[in-house]
Amino acid sequence: MVPIITVFERSPDGGKGLSRDMRVRWALAEVGQPYDVRTVSFAAMKQSAHLKRQTFGQIPTYEEGDLVLFESGSIVLHIAQNHSGLLPADTNAAARAITWMFAALNTVEPPILELQNAKFAEGDRPWAAERMPLVRDRIRERLAQLSDYLGDADWLEGGFTAGDLMMVHVVLRLRPSGLLDEFPNIASYVARGESRPAFRRAYEAQLPENVSKPGRG
Amino acid sequence: MVPIITVFERSPDGGKGLSRDMRVRWALAEVGQPYDVRTVSFAAMKQSAHLKRQTFGQIPTYEEGDLVLFESGSIVLHIAQNHSGLLPADTNAAARAITWMFAALNTVEPPILELQNAKFAEGDRPWAAERMPLVRDRIRERLAQLSDYLGDADWLEGGFTAGDLMMVHVVLRLRPSGLLDEFPNIASYVARGESRPAFRRAYEAQLPENVSKPGRG
Repeated sequence: MVPIITVFERSPDGGKGLSRDMRVRWALAEVGQPYDVRTVSFAAMKQSAHLKRQTFGQIPTYEEGDLVLFESGSIVLHIAQNHSGLLPADTNAAARAITWMFAALNTVEPPILELQNAKFAEGDRPWAAERMPLVRDRIRERLAQLSDYLGDADWLEGGFTAGDLMMVHVVLRLRPSGLLDEFPNIASYVARGESRPAFRRAYEAQLPENVSKPGRG
Repeated sequence: MVPIITVFERSPDGGKGLSRDMRVRWALAEVGQPYDVRTVSFAAMKQSAHLKRQTFGQIPTYEEGDLVLFESGSIVLHIAQNHSGLLPADTNAAARAITWMFAALNTVEPPILELQNAKFAEGDRPWAAERMPLVRDRIRERLAQLSDYLGDADWLEGGFTAGDLMMVHVVLRLRPSGLLDEFPNIASYVARGESRPAFRRAYEAQLPENVSKPGRG
């Protein structure tokens, strides 16, 4: 049974790999699981067929027989717990990897989402320019802490895990902001993630010309 | 072996149960697991002894022998996967419950964190009053979607799960804003969570006079 994922018909980034389906494609590619793809338009995302799968009208979703999941974190965890390759066999080490998934999504990503709102939802407001440095500083605080922890290590906890997959992709969304360049070890960490063969396969799969094709895994 | 959690020495909310250690206390109370408590001051949270446990200088942390976890989502999931009572036995139903944990933390909580920043980090800025309605509308959008999904159900997926625990606590943080009152079925859902005996035990445990005492579970 090949799982089906739902992705943007046209990603707002035009195929730069910043949308959250990239996390799921990357995880599936790491574990070698092929998948089918359903695309949704922005109009369809707000309609009942999609809302039945995704309460908040977002992407991605994941279907596997009767099971319907949403939230990139939940889907990547499900893939990681049902295949080998994304979580260490040792249960304590796996719990640490999962801690980093949550850190990416609940501590590092929120200020990045604030930056996106500042740019796209409030960019034309009179306070936009004056407020932007505050928003960027909140991200810098998180990146500085992550940078201190990471030091010169390749990955967060020894070998590559689902925690790195999630953290790399969350932080990658900052590339257009220039903030990554202020933290060379994080920039290297992201580049290390992007150079993985599974990342490359997932990136190719999400390009506009390939977006609706089945994924090779 | 009794786990140790780290919590605020003095919670910024003065003991209203809004801090993230409440999620962990509540989960431990639901499964009947006693625990010990370490308190940290605001100064100690930025020092190396704490940063070694919690990269981002936050609370809570969770220690169990050699295992050190942080992120309330990760800790609650660890508790839920190692005790009975917070996740259904059926694996698909458990995956759905975990989806709701991530939805609470990565879709519903980020706009609530933005509101906290708007109030506490930017409340004295010249744009604060004019901007606030935009921030509140972003929360309303998520609450409306959650309200549509929940309808007149007691819990998100049949019986109470770790997904409800996380969603109730995330949404509970909105009580001071008045936004909960706009969505009566969500207000009832939160009240239902707060009336659980385990929630009450956790709430008592986090009151200023009890905060550093061992938890009964």
